[in-house]
Amino acid sequence: MDFLFSTAFKVRDYECDLQGIVNNSVYLNYFEHTRHEFLKHIGFDFARLHKEQIDPVVYRAELDYKLPLKSGDEFLSTINIEPKGHLKLIFDQKIFRKKDGKLMMQGLITAVILKNGKPIRPTLFTERF
Amino acid sequence: MDFLFSTAFKVRDYECDLQGIVNNSVYLNYFEHTRHEFLKHIGFDFARLHKEQIDPVVYRAELDYKLPLKSGDEFLSTINIEPKGHLKLIFDQKIFRKKDGKLMMQGLITAVILKNGKPIRPTLFTERF
Amino acid sequence: MDFLFSTAFKVRDYECDLQGIVNNSVYLNYFEHTRHEFLKHIGFDFARLHKEQIDPVVYRAELDYKLPLKSGDEFLSTINIEPKGHLKLIFDQKIFRKKDGKLMMQGLITAVILKNGKPIRPTLFTERF
Amino acid sequence: MDFLFSTAFKVRDYECDLQGIVNNSVYLNYFEHTRHEFLKHIGFDFARLHKEQIDPVVYRAELDYKLPLKSGDEFLSTINIEPKGHLKLIFDQKIFRKKDGKLMMQGLITAVILKNGKPIRPTLFTERF
Repeated sequence: MDFLFSTAFKVRDYECDLQGIVNNSVYLNYFEHTRHEFLKHIGFDFARLHKEQIDPVVYRAELDYKLPLKSGDEFLSTINIEPKGHLKLIFDQKIFRKKDGKLMMQGLITAVILKNGKPIRPTLFTERF
Repeated sequence: MDFLFSTAFKVRDYECDLQGIVNNSVYLNYFEHTRHEFLKHIGFDFARLHKEQIDPVVYRAELDYKLPLKSGDEFLSTINIEPKGHLKLIFDQKIFRKKDGKLMMQGLITAVILKNGKPIRPTLFTERF
Repeated sequence: MDFLFSTAFKVRDYECDLQGIVNNSVYLNYFEHTRHEFLKHIGFDFARLHKEQIDPVVYRAELDYKLPLKSGDEFLSTINIEPKGHLKLIFDQKIFRKKDGKLMMQGLITAVILKNGKPIRPTLFTERF
Repeated sequence: MDFLFSTAFKVRDYECDLQGIVNNSVYLNYFEHTRHEFLKHIGFDFARLHKEQIDPVVYRAELDYKLPLKSGDEFLSTINIEPKGHLKLIFDQKIFRKKDGKLMMQGLITAVILKNGKPIRPTLFTERF
């Protein structure tokens, strides 16, 4: 459990579906919020970036669902980052349940940074971490 | 564009985020709804299955975001299926924009079927297609 | 069941929560999508309006939950509109279950139209219906 | 700003729509999560209640949108409760922006408690506060 940045969450009941577990799509919400909190942590604001026509977008996601989060679960969402080639950033994201430290979910999210719709080198971000 | 089953969709504006494109998590909603419509098509009801303690769950997802869906876009969400080993089903899912047939999104969703929380062979489904 | 405009929907399973019914917030999604489809029907595009700094926003909502929508339900979402004072539009929205025509949900949604953040008369819309 | 219970939140960017503000439906998510946290605070668990066939459901909602929450906003979501008649509970819910204490949103949420689908007196809850 070695990471660059983390955010604490608690499952909200509306995130659970009729199986009584957090719906599979919601983990991408958790991951996104964690990435945006990390951006804020290193001095960037996602909404402001958008106004400056700089848009980080998800290019690929590999998600491994280990154990389902349920109503009431608290968890830690962690991030590590590695550049890939000149244009991509890979966010290695994990979710650990608080009560027992179990790994619930793991994702590799590849992002590219678009400026006016064209990919740019992510150096404005990478030089901050 | 050869597939077992497809569902037509239209982007709803609340599915777009502040970048003005469909949020990355929403594609998992589209994919899930398409799978459940497919289940219905072959005679299974997701909610009823859950009451019988049979729960298909997502085990792994590989998502490739090709082009962003935007407000007003209509699209076709397609499915192909292949078993993997004894216990897994792989749903090969694609999203094609209606106006030009472009591939917007591609996903490989691996599911397992749980009965009372334990994985079972997916033969009850696979013998129907 | 007399209305200006309607849209057909089908419940998607991810819209149901752990009670097995459509979550109370989702009806506002259905209502919004119906309003935006109505706007399109009379020649306006919500995303394009936003780019022109014209933003219809919800000012007040009164929602009566009659009967819960469930997995698999198909329904019709209807709209009537009446102006209120000089600056407000009231959308009278209802949801009828397809299989038996039952009224499931009723809402009065008051909207105002902002231009560059300031309320304007909604005549650009009202002269179209 | 006198209340029985409150929860602190922070806007997550996926909750914002293409207008760049929190979507009107999301406030019902915030309100619901606050009610469920309050239930937990007085010793009840929403998911467990459901397993015991006890289901609080929303019967009516009156929502006044004062000012829009935006990306990055932190806020306090507060609750007061009053019984109404024998069968209803009214949750008086408000959202205050943290940075300036401004009232952003106000809702009166009427709930009924169903046991096996039939309304029961909410005394099991009301005797706890």
